[in-house]
Amino acid sequence: MSIGVCYYPEQWSQERWETDVREMAAAGFEYVRLAEFSWGRLEPERNTFDFEWLDEIVALVGDHGMNVVLCTPTASPPRWLLDEHPEIRQTDRDGTVRAGGSRREYCVNSSRYRVETERVVRELANRYADTSHVVGWQIDNEYGCHDTARCYCADCDGAFRDWLAERYGDADGLNDAWGTTFWSQQYDSVEQASVPAPTPAQDHPSLVLDYCRFCSDSIVAYNRLQAELLREYGDWFVTHNFMDRFPAIDLYNIADDLDLLSWDSYPTGHVQATDGQPTPDQLKAGDPDLISFNHDLHRGVLERPFWVMEQQPGDINWPPHSPQPAEGAMRLWAHHAVAHGADAVVYFRWRRCLHGQEQYHAGLRKRDGSPDRGYHDAARAAEELFDVGNVDASVALLHDYENVWALSEQPHAPDFDYWALVQSFYRALRARGVQVAVVHPTTDLSEYGAVVAPTLHIATEDLTDHLTEYVASGGELLLGPRTGVKDEGNKLRPASPPGPLSSLVGATVTHYETVPDQFDRTVVVNGTRYAVRTWAERLDADAAVPVVEYTGNELNGSTAGVRNAVGDGHVVYCGVWPEQELADDLVDTLLTRSGVDHADRLPNGVRAAVRDNHTWVLNFTSDRIDVETDAEWSIGSARIDPFDLAVADRDLLDGLTVNKRA
Amino acid sequence: MSIGVCYYPEQWSQERWETDVREMAAAGFEYVRLAEFSWGRLEPERNTFDFEWLDEIVALVGDHGMNVVLCTPTASPPRWLLDEHPEIRQTDRDGTVRAGGSRREYCVNSSRYRVETERVVRELANRYADTSHVVGWQIDNEYGCHDTARCYCADCDGAFRDWLAERYGDADGLNDAWGTTFWSQQYDSVEQASVPAPTPAQDHPSLVLDYCRFCSDSIVAYNRLQAELLREYGDWFVTHNFMDRFPAIDLYNIADDLDLLSWDSYPTGHVQATDGQPTPDQLKAGDPDLISFNHDLHRGVLERPFWVMEQQPGDINWPPHSPQPAEGAMRLWAHHAVAHGADAVVYFRWRRCLHGQEQYHAGLRKRDGSPDRGYHDAARAAEELFDVGNVDASVALLHDYENVWALSEQPHAPDFDYWALVQSFYRALRARGVQVAVVHPTTDLSEYGAVVAPTLHIATEDLTDHLTEYVASGGELLLGPRTGVKDEGNKLRPASPPGPLSSLVGATVTHYETVPDQFDRTVVVNGTRYAVRTWAERLDADAAVPVVEYTGNELNGSTAGVRNAVGDGHVVYCGVWPEQELADDLVDTLLTRSGVDHADRLPNGVRAAVRDNHTWVLNFTSDRIDVETDAEWSIGSARIDPFDLAVADRDLLDGLTVNKRA
Amino acid sequence: MSIGVCYYPEQWSQERWETDVREMAAAGFEYVRLAEFSWGRLEPERNTFDFEWLDEIVALVGDHGMNVVLCTPTASPPRWLLDEHPEIRQTDRDGTVRAGGSRREYCVNSSRYRVETERVVRELANRYADTSHVVGWQIDNEYGCHDTARCYCADCDGAFRDWLAERYGDADGLNDAWGTTFWSQQYDSVEQASVPAPTPAQDHPSLVLDYCRFCSDSIVAYNRLQAELLREYGDWFVTHNFMDRFPAIDLYNIADDLDLLSWDSYPTGHVQATDGQPTPDQLKAGDPDLISFNHDLHRGVLERPFWVMEQQPGDINWPPHSPQPAEGAMRLWAHHAVAHGADAVVYFRWRRCLHGQEQYHAGLRKRDGSPDRGYHDAARAAEELFDVGNVDASVALLHDYENVWALSEQPHAPDFDYWALVQSFYRALRARGVQVAVVHPTTDLSEYGAVVAPTLHIATEDLTDHLTEYVASGGELLLGPRTGVKDEGNKLRPASPPGPLSSLVGATVTHYETVPDQFDRTVVVNGTRYAVRTWAERLDADAAVPVVEYTGNELNGSTAGVRNAVGDGHVVYCGVWPEQELADDLVDTLLTRSGVDHADRLPNGVRAAVRDNHTWVLNFTSDRIDVETDAEWSIGSARIDPFDLAVADRDLLDGLTVNKRA
Repeated sequence: MSIGVCYYPEQWSQERWETDVREMAAAGFEYVRLAEFSWGRLEPERNTFDFEWLDEIVALVGDHGMNVVLCTPTASPPRWLLDEHPEIRQTDRDGTVRAGGSRREYCVNSSRYRVETERVVRELANRYADTSHVVGWQIDNEYGCHDTARCYCADCDGAFRDWLAERYGDADGLNDAWGTTFWSQQYDSVEQASVPAPTPAQDHPSLVLDYCRFCSDSIVAYNRLQAELLREYGDWFVTHNFMDRFPAIDLYNIADDLDLLSWDSYPTGHVQATDGQPTPDQLKAGDPDLISFNHDLHRGVLERPFWVMEQQPGDINWPPHSPQPAEGAMRLWAHHAVAHGADAVVYFRWRRCLHGQEQYHAGLRKRDGSPDRGYHDAARAAEELFDVGNVDASVALLHDYENVWALSEQPHAPDFDYWALVQSFYRALRARGVQVAVVHPTTDLSEYGAVVAPTLHIATEDLTDHLTEYVASGGELLLGPRTGVKDEGNKLRPASPPGPLSSLVGATVTHYETVPDQFDRTVVVNGTRYAVRTWAERLDADAAVPVVEYTGNELNGSTAGVRNAVGDGHVVYCGVWPEQELADDLVDTLLTRSGVDHADRLPNGVRAAVRDNHTWVLNFTSDRIDVETDAEWSIGSARIDPFDLAVADRDLLDGLTVNKRA
Repeated sequence: MSIGVCYYPEQWSQERWETDVREMAAAGFEYVRLAEFSWGRLEPERNTFDFEWLDEIVALVGDHGMNVVLCTPTASPPRWLLDEHPEIRQTDRDGTVRAGGSRREYCVNSSRYRVETERVVRELANRYADTSHVVGWQIDNEYGCHDTARCYCADCDGAFRDWLAERYGDADGLNDAWGTTFWSQQYDSVEQASVPAPTPAQDHPSLVLDYCRFCSDSIVAYNRLQAELLREYGDWFVTHNFMDRFPAIDLYNIADDLDLLSWDSYPTGHVQATDGQPTPDQLKAGDPDLISFNHDLHRGVLERPFWVMEQQPGDINWPPHSPQPAEGAMRLWAHHAVAHGADAVVYFRWRRCLHGQEQYHAGLRKRDGSPDRGYHDAARAAEELFDVGNVDASVALLHDYENVWALSEQPHAPDFDYWALVQSFYRALRARGVQVAVVHPTTDLSEYGAVVAPTLHIATEDLTDHLTEYVASGGELLLGPRTGVKDEGNKLRPASPPGPLSSLVGATVTHYETVPDQFDRTVVVNGTRYAVRTWAERLDADAAVPVVEYTGNELNGSTAGVRNAVGDGHVVYCGVWPEQELADDLVDTLLTRSGVDHADRLPNGVRAAVRDNHTWVLNFTSDRIDVETDAEWSIGSARIDPFDLAVADRDLLDGLTVNKRA
Repeated sequence: MSIGVCYYPEQWSQERWETDVREMAAAGFEYVRLAEFSWGRLEPERNTFDFEWLDEIVALVGDHGMNVVLCTPTASPPRWLLDEHPEIRQTDRDGTVRAGGSRREYCVNSSRYRVETERVVRELANRYADTSHVVGWQIDNEYGCHDTARCYCADCDGAFRDWLAERYGDADGLNDAWGTTFWSQQYDSVEQASVPAPTPAQDHPSLVLDYCRFCSDSIVAYNRLQAELLREYGDWFVTHNFMDRFPAIDLYNIADDLDLLSWDSYPTGHVQATDGQPTPDQLKAGDPDLISFNHDLHRGVLERPFWVMEQQPGDINWPPHSPQPAEGAMRLWAHHAVAHGADAVVYFRWRRCLHGQEQYHAGLRKRDGSPDRGYHDAARAAEELFDVGNVDASVALLHDYENVWALSEQPHAPDFDYWALVQSFYRALRARGVQVAVVHPTTDLSEYGAVVAPTLHIATEDLTDHLTEYVASGGELLLGPRTGVKDEGNKLRPASPPGPLSSLVGATVTHYETVPDQFDRTVVVNGTRYAVRTWAERLDADAAVPVVEYTGNELNGSTAGVRNAVGDGHVVYCGVWPEQELADDLVDTLLTRSGVDHADRLPNGVRAAVRDNHTWVLNFTSDRIDVETDAEWSIGSARIDPFDLAVADRDLLDGLTVNKRA
């Protein structure tokens, strides 16, 4: 388990490099990421490459016993290339061409940019093919950042038509898949189709879903181009640094071309991008469940350890507010990542940059080069971390991108956010310390003691068979609302929801509605009342037993959720969007019924995680906490300070109890 | 009084048609609306028409004893036409061309689209000219929906210049009418004028008013083109389905080309588009006064019964929230429409469509074809409804579109919304059960016991004479604030408001101001204090008697409203925007003074309406109510359940008392 | 001290002119501003000038003993010019060209518009060169109004490159100044640079700062063109009417070309444009500190009396709300302006205009030409005002535009508004009745008893020397947060803040953060606790003594502000954004230590000001107030009514006490 750092030597004078590299090594770092946005420096004019500076810094890193992760520099084309080939740039939906002057202005479907990409990647890969301590590559940087995953340029428009022709053959196939008799939208030819454009009313939802698929596929293809080039030259690992719950790229597709997944973790920023008001503690250290959801997702996709390729080093520039992280938070985040399956945590960045767009983003070192708090935290984490096997999750949480796209085009309720719904179930699992594998619904589920599917809005017959087999073989499945509504074309299924899953669930939805604040939609489960928000279904139970019922007003006694026994297992279907307390109740029951090991309910902001028989207890709060255990601790102790942690070298999860100190 | 339904056979397999039509007939429906967006199906390629499918369904409807209302399909040009003639599309103010992919992307001023319109309308009209049970036509669909009433394309720009030349002759006429010495805006020629464009500061208000007139006139002309074509072929009725208080089309102009007006009623959606937070009951059944204002407007324009051409069938897709309508609401709406003068209520639509933009919009039948709640409600309404004469309104409410346009360009106060001001007076009348004719100010008023003009911002000398004659002959007139401010060119009148009406009112406005929340603007009427919002005038009473006075702070004792005796009648001028309680007080006094029959103040959400000696009492609340009467009820009884209604076959209005049950 | 009025004879019939001018003279007015937007009237077609109307009105004004201020009419090019040369128009950042139809649509960098400007200015200036009572000129009108200070047209793009080449020489100079190694933004040539464009991520902050400088310089150059032309023809004064705290023009630069500064004062509008909810009194008379900040700024720039070129005459059209000003407010504003250094107050405008965009803006005369409240107030002010020397300010407040631009591009905290920070310190000074010179940081400070610098975000070594010299010589300096962060290129300084000022301050900033609402950031000063908002720094005191300390939570006891003794003076550095109470505390201490005369804390909305040994006490509240003094009053008395004032002919400031009457 290693610590690394991102370094931009091109931003500093050459005399400083040796000092910097020496102090990286002194902190126990093992990886240095280099060359990320350096195309302008590497190729100052067309076909004139300047590798000397990079050779030197790569050598310096090696000389100090560290490894290098190189980046392909394609996220920022140099100015001369933009001037020479302005057609490489993206176009907004309203026709505005995205200009240079920042980054990510290029279109992945630009054939010219693909040529240029191949040229620069070959040069770089060839240059370092024989440098043994160059161990891996990050392709490009944060695909889709700054809303660049969707482009509407002529290249995209043409590529979209090709994509549709490939998928549907001809106009008949397209008309069938989308349903185009509505509003005279029939195609005579696939050539009439185009990317979404400023039409007076809403877009056709089937067009939108396919456009989302196409945009993701376009990034997958562009990434594959680079991955394959890199593999021609060396036996290094290839990855990309993804972002917090990034909605526009299907990780399950792109992962096929990568050796490992990595993501960029900025806890105090991400927590400000979610609904609701973060607490002061969350503003200082993030929401552990939001962070670890990303860990578990980037681990779950390949079922393999992941990297944090950029770890927040201190205060950052882009969220609404830029609080100072709590004392020790930078160390806490490293341990937290490792507890959830990270093999390396790479801090972004070595030193605060004096110029450009990210001046207000800290580094491990201050602007004057002296160590900042992050440096000390990172060094301590480097010292403490130890090698450990992979995470063995007991519960699978089903997640996929087609549902993200379909539901974000037609949320129907103003606050129907796919990620928030997923998070309510995920948080309930993590409040019990359970390790969760975030996986695609089609994943083999046989190893999981329980499965939670927050929503399977789009559901196929194959998926139905897959889940039925899991349950019938003794699996315990918890299904959330708005499931089984759509087919793969984003058309309504003719059968009432949950459509193909109705027999598995043992009930159907007779009506659904969105829940405005003015409504009182309360349900009762085993005598306890819970508030409902956002979405409420009324069920007609068939084989199933009602377990969630409306109470009060005109819905009193009608069914909101059911449990069905199927073969050796059970499925629970909850037809309402649960507030956290209801999600907790449903998950607690699931864990108990499935016999999955779990802790007592952990305090908010306190989390436990077991990886390979080591137990981490992590305190994301400003309170002191006590762990009730006789276990020995290899790091810390049972009395844990604010924003501190403890590690024991055995599995303490079952029945683990942690209390806030009075 | 008939029930009908909108049907889209092109969205369903042919095998299903007979079942569907049979069950429409079984429910007692009398009308089926067809072919609304079917151009792509009717003419799959240029000049190749396919009528067979439509012939078949038209015949089926006739075979089952029902009539057909056909639609011209011009609201959605087929894709091949857009490809062939992209110039038919609209352009936004910022120059963005509106693309295909939804509907309403065409411009009514496109000469090419008018040619295409004529072609397709002639084909259709000719085809069904001899089919006797094709009894009427809906032209196009919801003109102006999705913000398409205003276009800025080159065709519109040229047509606007022609319109100006026609109206004003030359530049001198234009300069005089608008007043262009301000900011060097003089025209040397009408050819220099153009539609509004992205200029740094506000637009010239006179340009805006004329542009609004022009846009409305353009739609009127396009509608006339279709109406005249249809009349060449048959003796059927011609209508258009308008929308909730749609501001961009002057109904009083377009109505001249129509045999009857119809509108599309979606109570749970419209109520979410008004200011303020709807109550739970309103979310489930709408605001009866908002619904009936539209009924009374679409009846008032032609002083003739109207149709509801689309009646909400269940939950819908487009408002922020999509609650399930209350039990029985779909029946309640049908009765409510009839009580206010509807001759037919046509539900939109037969069955929830599986594809396209409106999947989240219910039909009378569920997605699987089985009956939904709306079907049962509609069938019950069809069984209950009976033939009845037209509504005989006792009070006229003066309303027009030039005031809508002038005030929406220069609201001056952030919350000065014409419709809200109108609604406060309308609601006060309806709270007393009074039938209201919403009519143009120039209408003959001699038959009305009282007249309410919420505002006559633009007022002419002719209008002054018209109103003075009404009052002098014994009429009772209630005038709202901001009256008599502007001339027809949207210029200020040189005289203080109410300008030409000053002599009728017997007072002038010395100052006005908008009322921010921080201000305490309270008035007193007959000893009762009322809060004022939005707009407050200070009056100088001349012949008139002060009846509304400010109380408290620096305005204490100054005049906010007056009453003037003129001939045999009276005019009351209220110079403040009344909160509901003040509007109620003013209206109650008006009804008493004029001797118009009225009920005791009805509870919120409970309404009574008399049509042709039948009295409806309608309960839009979740409370039970009791009517204090010995009358016999032909439908229901004096004890009315939530969202239910009762009908008596005589006029119960005068002194009618309804109570919420404890 | 004179009163004047803005008159637009072109908007009224010629028969009315004599009446109007006679009544201006009767009110004691001394100046009439003419011809402001009259290009269309002066030159109805190219090269055909019509001066007769203007000759006549100019003569009329002179005949009645008043002087004329003429305006160059360039703020509104005539329609024929726009048609002939559409390239003179501005372009928005997204490429939209700004159309005619209002005003200010021209670009100052259009070479064609400069030619046209020269043409019309020469004609006008030549015409009135020998008219002795034409005493001055206002160039154009409100540069930058309606967001027109920033243009992105091709002319601007080219001019920006020239500006960069002039400033930096070549690409190396540019790359150094901006720091372009970040995100591959290196320039090979200055010719590659361009104005900001729609790039996916943020703009480069150094580009933005230079673009802001360039835009200001462009307006300065355009203004100079006109000023120099006017000076060729006559010995009149030349000014421009600036706007409330207008951020886009560097007054310190443009002032070099002007004889006096003037600004347009609309108190009830400006107060609605600031954060927070204005009080009812502020809605009726404005915030006196907001008004006088502008007075003190426009006086401070040239250290010379200024004019109010447009004074609000009554209700106005452009803010969200348009309350009626309080009784007497129009007189109060005139006195207030004079007390702060105005030599003339010119009311906008004579009469409410019946047409065009500003119909809802009052004049001194009503729409029918009769006197409105403003006329009586203005006449009374004209009668009361007397000649008086200039203001002698005892405290300098340092202010400049480069900090406005840098901080508005990177506010970092959502509510870090430069003007609000400045205002908190300014308000504290005014609450003590102290006259403040708002001056550029490089101004000679030796005459000021104390200096307040709310923030010096960009700070140079020269500025450091300048301030150090002031303090060392016995000056008392109060420095606000976020000082010494940036260099002139808008790059971070390598040294921790306050960078070059660290030695003067005797402390450095170790960390800073923004303060979300959820945070408790409280400081203690001399035992009193104060809340902190927006911005909080943690200081490491070196030579300095901590005087502001955090209290509570994890920051308890750490340093937020320091005092350092340097030579014969002191500097206090406050590293947090002060709520008003903390600013008051810091300023009170400063005044005491520096021995600057000051009043007891004045009630909110009550202000005192001394100019040349006359003391004004001004009541901007609806309360009655009492001044505790035995002084004789030349205007009013010690008991001051709501929105009234009193003047004594000696300096009463030191120890002045004013109380609200119970």
